[in-house]
Amino acid sequence: MSARSKVYVTGSRPDIRVPFTEVALSDGEPPVRLYDTSGPGSEPADGLPRLRADWIAERGGGDRVTQLHYARNGVITPEMEFAAIREGLEPEFVRAEIAAGRAILPANINHPETEPMLIGKEFLVKINANIGTSAVSDSIADEVEKLTWATRWGADTVMDLSTGKHIHATREHIIRNAAVPIGTVPMYQALEKVNGDPVKLTWELYRDTVIEQAEQGVDYMTVHAGVLLRHVPLAADRVTGIVSRGGSIMAAWCLAHHTETFLYTHFRELCEIFARYDVAFSLGDGLRPGSIADANDAAQLAELRTLGELTTIAWEYDVQVMIEGPGHVPIHKIKENVDLQQEWCHEAPFYTLGPLTTDVAPAYDHITSAIGAAMIGTFGTAMLCYVTPKEHLGLPNRDDVKEGVIAYKIAAHAADLAKGHPSAQVWDDALSKARFEFRWEDQFNLSLDPQRAREYHDETLPAEPAKTAHFCSMCGPKFCSMRISHDLKAYADKGMSEKSREFVEAGGKVYLPVVD
Amino acid sequence: MSARSKVYVTGSRPDIRVPFTEVALSDGEPPVRLYDTSGPGSEPADGLPRLRADWIAERGGGDRVTQLHYARNGVITPEMEFAAIREGLEPEFVRAEIAAGRAILPANINHPETEPMLIGKEFLVKINANIGTSAVSDSIADEVEKLTWATRWGADTVMDLSTGKHIHATREHIIRNAAVPIGTVPMYQALEKVNGDPVKLTWELYRDTVIEQAEQGVDYMTVHAGVLLRHVPLAADRVTGIVSRGGSIMAAWCLAHHTETFLYTHFRELCEIFARYDVAFSLGDGLRPGSIADANDAAQLAELRTLGELTTIAWEYDVQVMIEGPGHVPIHKIKENVDLQQEWCHEAPFYTLGPLTTDVAPAYDHITSAIGAAMIGTFGTAMLCYVTPKEHLGLPNRDDVKEGVIAYKIAAHAADLAKGHPSAQVWDDALSKARFEFRWEDQFNLSLDPQRAREYHDETLPAEPAKTAHFCSMCGPKFCSMRISHDLKAYADKGMSEKSREFVEAGGKVYLPVVD
Repeated sequence: MSARSKVYVTGSRPDIRVPFTEVALSDGEPPVRLYDTSGPGSEPADGLPRLRADWIAERGGGDRVTQLHYARNGVITPEMEFAAIREGLEPEFVRAEIAAGRAILPANINHPETEPMLIGKEFLVKINANIGTSAVSDSIADEVEKLTWATRWGADTVMDLSTGKHIHATREHIIRNAAVPIGTVPMYQALEKVNGDPVKLTWELYRDTVIEQAEQGVDYMTVHAGVLLRHVPLAADRVTGIVSRGGSIMAAWCLAHHTETFLYTHFRELCEIFARYDVAFSLGDGLRPGSIADANDAAQLAELRTLGELTTIAWEYDVQVMIEGPGHVPIHKIKENVDLQQEWCHEAPFYTLGPLTTDVAPAYDHITSAIGAAMIGTFGTAMLCYVTPKEHLGLPNRDDVKEGVIAYKIAAHAADLAKGHPSAQVWDDALSKARFEFRWEDQFNLSLDPQRAREYHDETLPAEPAKTAHFCSMCGPKFCSMRISHDLKAYADKGMSEKSREFVEAGGKVYLPVVD
Repeated sequence: MSARSKVYVTGSRPDIRVPFTEVALSDGEPPVRLYDTSGPGSEPADGLPRLRADWIAERGGGDRVTQLHYARNGVITPEMEFAAIREGLEPEFVRAEIAAGRAILPANINHPETEPMLIGKEFLVKINANIGTSAVSDSIADEVEKLTWATRWGADTVMDLSTGKHIHATREHIIRNAAVPIGTVPMYQALEKVNGDPVKLTWELYRDTVIEQAEQGVDYMTVHAGVLLRHVPLAADRVTGIVSRGGSIMAAWCLAHHTETFLYTHFRELCEIFARYDVAFSLGDGLRPGSIADANDAAQLAELRTLGELTTIAWEYDVQVMIEGPGHVPIHKIKENVDLQQEWCHEAPFYTLGPLTTDVAPAYDHITSAIGAAMIGTFGTAMLCYVTPKEHLGLPNRDDVKEGVIAYKIAAHAADLAKGHPSAQVWDDALSKARFEFRWEDQFNLSLDPQRAREYHDETLPAEPAKTAHFCSMCGPKFCSMRISHDLKAYADKGMSEKSREFVEAGGKVYLPVVD
C-alpha cells in the first residue's frame, strides 16, 4: 500500500492542516485524494496531539462555547474551515449550514484531539461505528484497538457503548486516542451506578454522569428524552416491544414512578451543561422499531414529534442537535422516515441505525442494513450508524468491525453519488478508468480495501505478470470484453468503413498479446 | 438443522408435488413454510428424476411447445399449477401473467428435471447464480458442486457461462443435475468452435450451437441481438467501453464485416428454434454500463429500444422473453432503467445484474450490488443476477458463490417485502417473534443461514444454556432491552397507575432470572 500516503492541505493559518489519503497512480495519471478518518496515529499510552487546543483557548470560555454559537454570530472557526477543506466546500457555506441547525460539528472543548468533521445533509454522508465493553466482554485494550481499527477503515465517529466495569477508564483511553468525535449514551453508566436498577435512577445522578463525561470530552451524547410516559403504552402490542436499551430503561423508570421522564422535565438544565462544553445532542429514538412489523408505527412517530420539540429548545441554548432514527424498516417505508424527521425536527441532521430492510438474515445484517442505509442516505440522512454481522447475535470482534465499516462506507458513498456531492464521483471514475486500462495496481490502491482486492485477484492468478495482464481470471485472455473494447475504440477513432477494412486486412485480430 | 425438513404440497393431480422447506418451531408456534430451490438431491452421476416427463409427453410435440403458447390458448399446464402453488397464488393468475408476456416459466422440454418457477414482477423476486469453467479454471465436478451449492442457498436459476474446454460435457452434467432452469450464452461456445476469433463466426455455426444446447435442455439463452452496427460507435467514448463479453464479441463481428449482426438479421429463425424446445430468450444487454460514469447512456438506451422490438417479434412465435439490464448504475438512475425497460419492452420481465451502486469496492461488490438489486427489485425487476465478492477480480469459489447467493436472497426478499408480496412478511414476523421471545433455536432455524447465525451466537456465549437465555452477549443480562420490554408488556396489560403501583410494590424489578 505504499502508493497510499497521508498528505496535508494547509488552510488560512499554518495550524489548520487537513489530512487526506493520496493515492499515487501509474501511467502519468494524476493522484487521487480521498477523505481520511484514520487520524495521526499514536501509541495508546500517550494519546494523540491536541490539534484544537490553541483554537479553543483563543476563543476563551463562557456559558456557550458551541460551534452553533459561533456560527450564529458569523464566526468561521478554525474547526469550520478545517471541515470545509475536508469536504471540498466553502467555509462560509459550512458556517451557514451549522448556523441553520442543518449540520453539526461535534467538538467538545475537552476533546482537542478531534479532527473536525461535519454531519449534515449537504455534506458527505458519514458513518458511525459502535464499540464498547459489556458484562461478558471487558477489555479496555481491545476497545482502543477497535477504535483505531474502525477509523482506519473509515469510521467518521465512534460511539463508546460500554456497559461493563471500568466505564470511566475505558472512555478515557478511547477519547485520548480518538481523532474522530466520540459519542456515548450516559444512561448506561448512570445505570451501572445504581447497580442496574432503573427505578433508582435520579436526575441528579444522571446529571452528574453527564458532567463527568462532558469533562472527559465526549462530543455527542444520546439522550432518550422523547420516551414520554404517554408513549410507552403505544409500544405494548408491538412484535418486538422496545428494542433500544436507553428507551427501555427510561420506559421502566416512567412506569415505576408514574411520572414524566427526568430527561424531559430537566431538559433545559441539560442544555445548559451541553452548551458549556459543546456537547451535541443525539436525541435518541428509544421507541425505534426492532422489526419490519413495527416500522413507522404510532410509538415511533409520537417520539419523533417530541424530538422535534426538544430540538427547538436545544437551539435556544445554541446547543447542536442531531436526531436518531431506526432501526428495522422495509424499503417502501424508508423515505417517510426522512421526510417526517426533516419536517418535524426542522431539518436537524438525521442519524439512523441502518435501517435493516428485512429481519430474516441474522449474521448478514451488515448487508440487510447497508441496503437501507444507502437508501436513507440518498434521501438526506446525514450519518449512518453501522451494523456488524454480529448484530442480534453477539459482540463484534475486530473482523466484524471492519466488515461493518466497509459495508457502511459503501452505503455512504453510494448515497454521496446519488446526491451528487461534488467530490464523490471522481473516485469511481479514477478506479473505473484504471480497471479499463488494466492498471491493476492502481485499481487495488484506489479500492476501499486494497489488501482484500489484491488477495482476491491473486487467488486465481497469483503470478506477478498477471498484475499487468490485459485480462483477468473471470473470462481468461481470449474472452476479455475490455480487451476487445480497447481494440474497438482504436478503430472507432476512424471512419466506420475504413475501420472495417483495416480490421479485416489486419487479420481481424482483437486479441493482442496478453501481457505487456 | 433437523428442525428444517422438506415437505410437499400436492396439487390437482398426484404428480404435482411442490417442495417447501418447513421450519418447525417450539412453544406451540405453528411451523413456517419457506420457498425451496434445493431440488430433490441426487448423485451427480445419476442425474435427477424427470419430474415433468409425463406432462411434456401428454401435451405432445409440435412447432410451438412453449408455456406462452399454452397460456395464450387458455391452458393451465401442470408447470403453471406447480409454480402457482410455490408462490401461494392462483394458477389462473399465473396463466394470465404468462399469456400477457409479463412473466416467463422457463422450461425446455428436454429439461424435464426442472421444478417449475416463475419470473415476473407479480411474483417473488428471483435470483440467478452464474457458474462455469474458464480457460484458467476448468473442472466439471467443481461446477456441478457449485450448482448444487448455489441452489441449496436459494438460487432460483443458474447460468452456465463456461468458456473453457469440455463445454458440452460440462453443460450436460449441469442440466441433468439441475432442478432449476439453466441459462447459457451460446455465443461463448460458438466462439470456442472458431478458436476465439469472432470474425469467423457465422449464423450457421451459431444456429447449430443453439440447437445443440436446446437439445440438451437449456431453458433460457442470452442473445445479444440488440448490439446493432449503428450502436457500437455510441460506446466508443465510454469510461469502460463494452464490458459484456457477448456484446464485445458481436461488436467486433459487426465492425469486421461492416454489416448487421446475424443475431438480428436471423432473429426470426432463432424464434422458430426456441419455440420448438420452449427455450426462453434472455435478450442480452451487450452495451450495459460497466461503470458509474457510463450508466443510462445513449449506447445502453439505444440497445434497450431494439430489445423492445425483438420482444414483439419473439412473441409472434409464442416464445417467452425476458430482458437483461445493467450493470453499474448510481442509485438515482436506477428507477429510470426499470421504467424505460417496462415501457419499451412491453412489460416483459426485467433481469438485471446488480446493479452495482459504486465502482470503488472491488472484493465487496456483492454488497455494492445488493443495494442496487434490492432497489431495482422493488421497482419491478423480476430476477436479479448475483454478483460475488470476486467480481472484477477472479472466479468465484464455493464460498464466494454462497456469499453472492445470500446477499441476493436478502435483496430479493427485501424487495418482496417492499412490493407487498402476500407471502413475504410471514417469514420476518415469525423470526422477529422468536427473537423477542428468546426462542434462540427458532431464530436460528428461521434464518437465511442457520448455521452461521448459530456460530456467531456461540462465539461469544458458547454454553448450551445461553441458547435459552433471556439475553444475548450484545448487552449482557442486565441491559437487555427486550427483557425489559417483556416486563413492560406484562404491566401494560393492566391500567397505567395500577401498573405503576404494582411495579414499585414488586420491588421495581425488571430483570427476571436470566436463564429459564
